Amino acid sequence: MTDNAQANLKNLYRIFTIPEAPDSTLGSIDQAITDNLAGFLQEHIVALERDLEEIERDFVDTAIPEQPTFVSDYTEFVKKKLVAQSVHTASPGFIGHMTSAMPYFMLPLSRIMIALNQNLVKVETSKVFTPLERQVLAMLNRLIYNHDDAFYQRWIHDSQSALGAFCSGGTIANITALWTARNQLCGPDGDFQGIAQEGLFAALKHLNCEGLVVLASRRGHYSLGKAVDLLGLGRDNLIAVDTDDNSRVDMRQLRNHCYRVQNEGKRVMALVGIAGTTETGNVDPLEEMADLAEELGCHFHVDAAWGGPTLFSETHRWRLRGIERADSVTIDAHKQLYVPMGAGMVLFKDPAALSAIEHHAAYILRHGSKDLGSHTLEGSRPGKALLVHAGLSIIGRRGYELLIDQGIARAQGFADRIVAHDDFELVTPPELNILTYRYNPSWLQRVMAQAPEETVKEINILLDQITQMIQKEQREAGKTFVSRTRLEPARYHGETITVFRVVLANPLTSDDILDAVLQEQCELARQESLRDCFDQLRQIAAGCRVERLAL
Amino acid sequence: MTDNAQANLKNLYRIFTIPEAPDSTLGSIDQAITDNLAGFLQEHIVALERDLEEIERDFVDTAIPEQPTFVSDYTEFVKKKLVAQSVHTASPGFIGHMTSAMPYFMLPLSRIMIALNQNLVKVETSKVFTPLERQVLAMLNRLIYNHDDAFYQRWIHDSQSALGAFCSGGTIANITALWTARNQLCGPDGDFQGIAQEGLFAALKHLNCEGLVVLASRRGHYSLGKAVDLLGLGRDNLIAVDTDDNSRVDMRQLRNHCYRVQNEGKRVMALVGIAGTTETGNVDPLEEMADLAEELGCHFHVDAAWGGPTLFSETHRWRLRGIERADSVTIDAHKQLYVPMGAGMVLFKDPAALSAIEHHAAYILRHGSKDLGSHTLEGSRPGKALLVHAGLSIIGRRGYELLIDQGIARAQGFADRIVAHDDFELVTPPELNILTYRYNPSWLQRVMAQAPEETVKEINILLDQITQMIQKEQREAGKTFVSRTRLEPARYHGETITVFRVVLANPLTSDDILDAVLQEQCELARQESLRDCFDQLRQIAAGCRVERLAL
Repeated sequence: MTDNAQANLKNLYRIFTIPEAPDSTLGSIDQAITDNLAGFLQEHIVALERDLEEIERDFVDTAIPEQPTFVSDYTEFVKKKLVAQSVHTASPGFIGHMTSAMPYFMLPLSRIMIALNQNLVKVETSKVFTPLERQVLAMLNRLIYNHDDAFYQRWIHDSQSALGAFCSGGTIANITALWTARNQLCGPDGDFQGIAQEGLFAALKHLNCEGLVVLASRRGHYSLGKAVDLLGLGRDNLIAVDTDDNSRVDMRQLRNHCYRVQNEGKRVMALVGIAGTTETGNVDPLEEMADLAEELGCHFHVDAAWGGPTLFSETHRWRLRGIERADSVTIDAHKQLYVPMGAGMVLFKDPAALSAIEHHAAYILRHGSKDLGSHTLEGSRPGKALLVHAGLSIIGRRGYELLIDQGIARAQGFADRIVAHDDFELVTPPELNILTYRYNPSWLQRVMAQAPEETVKEINILLDQITQMIQKEQREAGKTFVSRTRLEPARYHGETITVFRVVLANPLTSDDILDAVLQEQCELARQESLRDCFDQLRQIAAGCRVERLAL
Repeated sequence: MTDNAQANLKNLYRIFTIPEAPDSTLGSIDQAITDNLAGFLQEHIVALERDLEEIERDFVDTAIPEQPTFVSDYTEFVKKKLVAQSVHTASPGFIGHMTSAMPYFMLPLSRIMIALNQNLVKVETSKVFTPLERQVLAMLNRLIYNHDDAFYQRWIHDSQSALGAFCSGGTIANITALWTARNQLCGPDGDFQGIAQEGLFAALKHLNCEGLVVLASRRGHYSLGKAVDLLGLGRDNLIAVDTDDNSRVDMRQLRNHCYRVQNEGKRVMALVGIAGTTETGNVDPLEEMADLAEELGCHFHVDAAWGGPTLFSETHRWRLRGIERADSVTIDAHKQLYVPMGAGMVLFKDPAALSAIEHHAAYILRHGSKDLGSHTLEGSRPGKALLVHAGLSIIGRRGYELLIDQGIARAQGFADRIVAHDDFELVTPPELNILTYRYNPSWLQRVMAQAPEETVKEINILLDQITQMIQKEQREAGKTFVSRTRLEPARYHGETITVFRVVLANPLTSDDILDAVLQEQCELARQESLRDCFDQLRQIAAGCRVERLAL
């Protein structure tokens, strides 16, 4: 080896050595970043008003650097190019997506988790983290199913079974649930060795049926579409059922679809109820869905990725009544458990259910081992269960209850203000802590109430442009942020309109901030670029009045 | 609201507020944990010699705590019950799994990543992190495929396509690759709308075939089994092909299987080559596999979760020759890119490939948006690409090359020492930085070389017990750690034996430590509990000698 290579090697070893005391470089970087972060985070949602296209120009070099970079130089890059141009998802004015400020203890605990770098796929690389994760799964299982002590004592650490599975998020949780449902429905039977072994083609032949069907409301999360694609069922076999005026699945239609499907020679594999729809925060009639699933003998899954933690609240948990009858339930920890990004769970009523997807290997996950990896879709996984455990312990049931209750109350208060405001239309009132609305002055709302359907359609097209423009410019201004989506509210006869979407889960979001959001939207509506839209609206309105006079 | 509830609420808000300067509680906790971690990490692999069953007793409470716990109390729990009983995966003596010490800068950068809490599913919650992730994917794509500058300039930030997908690990990466392969093979065609839409049953009818088959060597990772189960193909349609003496897929057998499958009316969907088998670290003949895949017109996936970074080494990259012809390649960042747990990638040769699994929603991932989530299996994801970017920048191509070269050299050196040692048998020599061996004294090896097959079998059964016992006790002693697996080496005519498995990727693992591992195993072999095994072995050996004399 040359002297140069020797020197390089020595440098390399140094970066892998844990400094006994934080050395000056590391310490100062860490400090600089912390200072910068705090300074930045208090001021803006997105610091620099640069287009994505403009930012991209800094990220076009695809050659892997040949020579190492100094950590201090890299830190400058992180500060100037990354931190300064990231999104302040924790800001109390960032109310458009399912993000929030985090409890401060999550940060040092995350650091420990990362420093320990456990791998939860097996006991040999996680030791105590394995029983910890099982305990967390049991706690969440209990929150939903509330089996008795003897049940949990029996199953919590049983190597052959699982009360649930930890994963990177709600999508994997939903897929795991439907994978399990599929494999249970098509389990080994006589000569047929089961779908896991023989595949879907053989399974359908064995069941003598044309397809397996999953039904959920139109408001179901897009991960359900991914799931039926991935599992080989096909998106045609995910039936999106219409909802009632409250964005809850229409039970009559759901039942009709189920029996239609069966008449077509297909099997209903699963009903999916939603506890907290992504776009409007509504809860399906879970009790009635459980009845129907029982009647059909099919799997009942509840996607409570968002709404699950409502169960913490003695005031509001009734809204999820029937969830305890679900065969499986998805809950996201990085949503209303206030854990950092990348932690989800699926819980099962029956501790034997996950056996339907059990798998083993020669070097780990051996039969009889307690390795968690034998019952998870993912392989290697970090010890995020620690953060859920910390939340449950430090915040406690009552703490989470307060958070949930406050969020729902804040959403109701905001809805009241929107209704009372002269310039806005509340589109979907909040059942939990999500609502949608749009800019629609009351004079125009009055016109729409009486105008013929064709005219309403014309107006909605213009309002869509206005909503889209305001949302975009508000986001780019970087002070506050709401998201937007497209819905088909009953009052417009199923016509699809664009709306602002607001999620109120950040406990630091005050009424003043909500007022500022509306205030900013009013200002944006008055800007030059929208004048043309409003002129057209006024003309249409005038036309309506003329028509009415003519009559 | 009662005064009490008011006070609770105030406390709750406090834990969500970022302290302007670290307050004394947070500061001291963070410090205490850091100190404790460093102190602990330098001494043991697993600190307390407690059985898992014993530890489990501390994790049986399934009721979610009603009242909050003080952060300081929780910190005590973390220190005493978690940190003290976790596994020191970074220890240079922990050479049984794919873990290592981490570059120190990963810790402060992880903290930033977690504090920023970006969600990479969409631009609105990630801004600059979206182009950053695309850049990282392009860099890794280039490492494998080395397309020209114009290619990367054209595709790196193109909203309609993707050079790869970031995910939580190799399992999701492999599933994503095979999902894509399946959907491409069964894409829309005439009246058939494609498998994503119509499902596998309709797809097979359309293709007029009996099943889709994936072929890989017996040494393929267990995630391939999960993938064919999940995708509806069935485990029967994953063919595990025998390997040659070097644990590489036997090309003659692979080819025969492919044509047999076709004669049975099935379609070969994909060949999976392995670049660094999990158990033995071998590399399949990728060039020849690429030829065969081309001949068959099927997808060629390479699972380079472990071995991918070998491409950094000018000395060793030839070992992966042919990988640039793969349609898709899996690389794990939490393995030889030295990033903390939970980061993997799948790269595609064709930027349009991932369109086969593209999906959209009304509130995000809209057509034409740059949201990364439209081409990933997972939904919400953290900004781990930052850590890969940091590694590539700070360590650089040459730094990674040194790490790879040193690992391979160290494994070769260790293999030499095992061969020269009187008490050990090298079972699989290292091609990269993984090898397997077992305790098998040379006098016994000499007996086995001449004994009849039946006797060899008898000896192997006893050696298996010895290997298993030594591995278990060494793990429990907590000074050093090797893993174990079961292999069928050619020299024992396909008989399955238990072996120690060693992975040498931690740059801090010195020759002294490797000597200590062997030394400890020799001591464990001499203990009382194994005396009976060795007595039996000596008797068998004596019997063999008597037989030979009798002849």
